Amino acid sequence: MAEALIGAVEAGGTKFVLALARKDGTILRETRIPTRDPRETFAEMADFFRTASASHGPIGAFGVASFGPIDIDPASPTYGTFTATPKPGWQGARFHDALGEFGVPVRIETDVNGAAMGEWLAGAGRGCRTLAYTTVGTGIGTGVVTAGTQLAGFSHYEAGHIPVRRDPARDPFGGCCPFHGDCLEGLAAGPAIVARWGDSLDKLEARETAVELVASYIAQHAATLVLMHMPDRLIYGGGVMHAPGLIAAVRRQAEVLLGGYVANERLDPGLERYIVLPGLGDDAGITGAIALGRQALDASA
Amino acid sequence: MAEALIGAVEAGGTKFVLALARKDGTILRETRIPTRDPRETFAEMADFFRTASASHGPIGAFGVASFGPIDIDPASPTYGTFTATPKPGWQGARFHDALGEFGVPVRIETDVNGAAMGEWLAGAGRGCRTLAYTTVGTGIGTGVVTAGTQLAGFSHYEAGHIPVRRDPARDPFGGCCPFHGDCLEGLAAGPAIVARWGDSLDKLEARETAVELVASYIAQHAATLVLMHMPDRLIYGGGVMHAPGLIAAVRRQAEVLLGGYVANERLDPGLERYIVLPGLGDDAGITGAIALGRQALDASA
Repeated sequence: MAEALIGAVEAGGTKFVLALARKDGTILRETRIPTRDPRETFAEMADFFRTASASHGPIGAFGVASFGPIDIDPASPTYGTFTATPKPGWQGARFHDALGEFGVPVRIETDVNGAAMGEWLAGAGRGCRTLAYTTVGTGIGTGVVTAGTQLAGFSHYEAGHIPVRRDPARDPFGGCCPFHGDCLEGLAAGPAIVARWGDSLDKLEARETAVELVASYIAQHAATLVLMHMPDRLIYGGGVMHAPGLIAAVRRQAEVLLGGYVANERLDPGLERYIVLPGLGDDAGITGAIALGRQALDASA
Repeated sequence: MAEALIGAVEAGGTKFVLALARKDGTILRETRIPTRDPRETFAEMADFFRTASASHGPIGAFGVASFGPIDIDPASPTYGTFTATPKPGWQGARFHDALGEFGVPVRIETDVNGAAMGEWLAGAGRGCRTLAYTTVGTGIGTGVVTAGTQLAGFSHYEAGHIPVRRDPARDPFGGCCPFHGDCLEGLAAGPAIVARWGDSLDKLEARETAVELVASYIAQHAATLVLMHMPDRLIYGGGVMHAPGLIAAVRRQAEVLLGGYVANERLDPGLERYIVLPGLGDDAGITGAIALGRQALDASA
């Protein structure tokens, strides 16, 4: 019998990355489709896997790393269903419905948990026991992996929405989070940057001041993450982190905020080895999705 | 052969609670001794267990819930040793040295992890999968228990030191944390309250304003804890929480900060069932220490 293959989905708010892969991670076929409404996108997704499977062999399990909020509790009757997402049409959409025709296990995680798993397995998080992966893009989210397991409470974490210090004299922008105004995401995610300065961080002329300001918020997240999870390493990815100088400013300000209190050899002076960019770049998500599919395959074996 | 007994230690900065207990939790003998220097206190501790054991039977394991910072990594060569504690004389002191004469396993956790375990087993955290216990006293610390296991990264959490928002117009006090100034502990722990108002929160005449201010910081901790751990319940204990009206003010302000973003049936309107006082009161620590001893006993069986 042919080895069962893995269907992997990195579901983002802008695009879906779809891959058919071997259990060892080799990608046999891959495509990108725009995220439209769930009816269209789910139909294209199923079509891709149907066609790819016809060429390469049967799919044994799916791994999905998705935008959210989404129910990621395997014991829940609505596992795999989008909940209160502001993305039009997606609330109530469920991956299991779209992939049900294949009759195989489907493992769902958030996009950041998937990327955390990918980086832990094959990227900048190799060798860590506990790894925190944060994306700073359209939104901000954090996934924490410990010894190959994604941490969660009654739901996945929402660390992008923590309250942060804002000095109104330095930053009069009141934030753009529809729930919290000036929470971290409302101040430091992509839309907040465009709302404040009219362009993305890497394109601004007077970039230095803007980078320091955005870094001041991300550094508060980093310090809080250290104090509340004590990870072996912090990875910051996502579009906003492409801005030149941003990761260096985050390191510098996080070190000041921590004030030497957490004395451990993992936190090197300057934090250059502790706070890092992703090792897999844009491939963390799909790598994590394949890993999730592998877990589903192993659990069903 | 007689059933092996458990030696339990709740080690606080002011006093040690010592108990000899059966595996079912029944306490056979208990005492309290003041925390002096480690030589004296450790000698009294060993003496108590020696005498109690002579009357009741052999000790099979010790469980210790201790103040810190302390090395709680069982794989570390300095497991059970106080690290950078500001408490004079205690840095470098090690529980295993003091209890080594008994020749049995010693399980060490932080005081808050011990209390979290106690509350999870027998207090206000019964029925939870993930429980966060926070003490607000001389210091502020948080322990998180999931399915009977204390969560930790490379070290125990230090959630008392997270940065929080302070409005200098409302609170000109710059905080008293020697590392961070106006972090949570520097603004809301017992010493900060005494430094600001000259007395503890429950004794102030104009208490309402002070309670609302302290609650504003604890509520930021609560909201951050929800977003970074998604616990099934938050317990707040410690001396500061005895102040009338404080827990109600924390609930009210945490609910405002969360802004309805985390929509889950666990977070009841008003958060009266979600943010609660300890169920075991002052017994959470020793109950947790007995539970730790039981784990050590079971692991060695």
